[in-house]
Amino acid sequence: MSDGDAAEEIMCATHRALCAHGYADLTMQDIADESTKSKAALHYHYDSKHDLLCAFLEFLYDRFVERTADIEAADPHAELLALVDVVLQKPESEPEGFETAVLEIRAQAPYEPGFRERLSRFEEYLVAEFTEVLEAGIEDGTFAADVEPADTARFLVTVLTGASTERVTVGRSVECTQRMLRSYIERHLLAEQREGIEA
Amino acid sequence: MSDGDAAEEIMCATHRALCAHGYADLTMQDIADESTKSKAALHYHYDSKHDLLCAFLEFLYDRFVERTADIEAADPHAELLALVDVVLQKPESEPEGFETAVLEIRAQAPYEPGFRERLSRFEEYLVAEFTEVLEAGIEDGTFAADVEPADTARFLVTVLTGASTERVTVGRSVECTQRMLRSYIERHLLAEQREGIEA
Repeated sequence: MSDGDAAEEIMCATHRALCAHGYADLTMQDIADESTKSKAALHYHYDSKHDLLCAFLEFLYDRFVERTADIEAADPHAELLALVDVVLQKPESEPEGFETAVLEIRAQAPYEPGFRERLSRFEEYLVAEFTEVLEAGIEDGTFAADVEPADTARFLVTVLTGASTERVTVGRSVECTQRMLRSYIERHLLAEQREGIEA
Repeated sequence: MSDGDAAEEIMCATHRALCAHGYADLTMQDIADESTKSKAALHYHYDSKHDLLCAFLEFLYDRFVERTADIEAADPHAELLALVDVVLQKPESEPEGFETAVLEIRAQAPYEPGFRERLSRFEEYLVAEFTEVLEAGIEDGTFAADVEPADTARFLVTVLTGASTERVTVGRSVECTQRMLRSYIERHLLAEQREGIEA
């Protein structure tokens, strides 16, 4: 087994272990139990649980970048909606407990600079993706000229973060958020609707 | 010391202990150390750390209801902005670590039905407060007649939840969220702006 294959196997085992046990009680043994490796072998690859979880956040980041790169859309409006949906909808294969484990890790960020650094990278990437779509849409006249791409991108990411937190905390479905975001985009960002306000 | 005074003292000690230690590592001894009581005395009032934290969430709820009841505003628009600000801005006396501890507790909600029940009550209260202000504003013509009060209230709460999660996770200030929410309210909800769209 190559180093890359071993890393991939450990990342998948970490994913399963987080879904089953959550973050707080997770041990290296739990991760070993989900893989073909011993706990000692895990420690050969990663010094500590902290290091392994930092690598796992990077693995998630790469997977997420791949998912957003797959988006094909006819125009900036469709692309913006597709990007919202990719973030809002969990992959169908994802067990219930995973989003909870991710929120647990987020809540540890103030205590773990390694987590915060990787979560910030994640967030900055998403803000940059939204900014890029918004800029392209302003350029081609899809979105109103006075939309602030960077601020609007941050706002959209905040809404998506809130929807994920609420899904974990109070079990609320994201359906209402999805509907309200579509309405926000239509009424607040699209050039054709916004012209009415200026008139 | 009356039972009420004892409960109040334990709640304040819990608040200090959560700020200092976070949720994950919090012990009954940490809470006792912040109060004049022994760990045994705490157990006389609360069977377990879980029971004590459920009581603490109720204490927070009551404090929050008091804070929102204090809002005095000239009209529904001002009241909506004031309600956003009360949620977005932490009380000045609140130490840095407290919001983190609350997010840790939120992330435990799927494992702890007692937490989820109390957090849901919190959220439903806030949604009901926003709904009430929106309904009053639609009634008196401040907000556009086609604003959906319940959906809009839920959307506002989602944004506020996202801003709090991001403040903890990546240390992002709420300043951009505040600005974008003001713009959302002005352009999306106020009747005078919305008329432009219908024209």
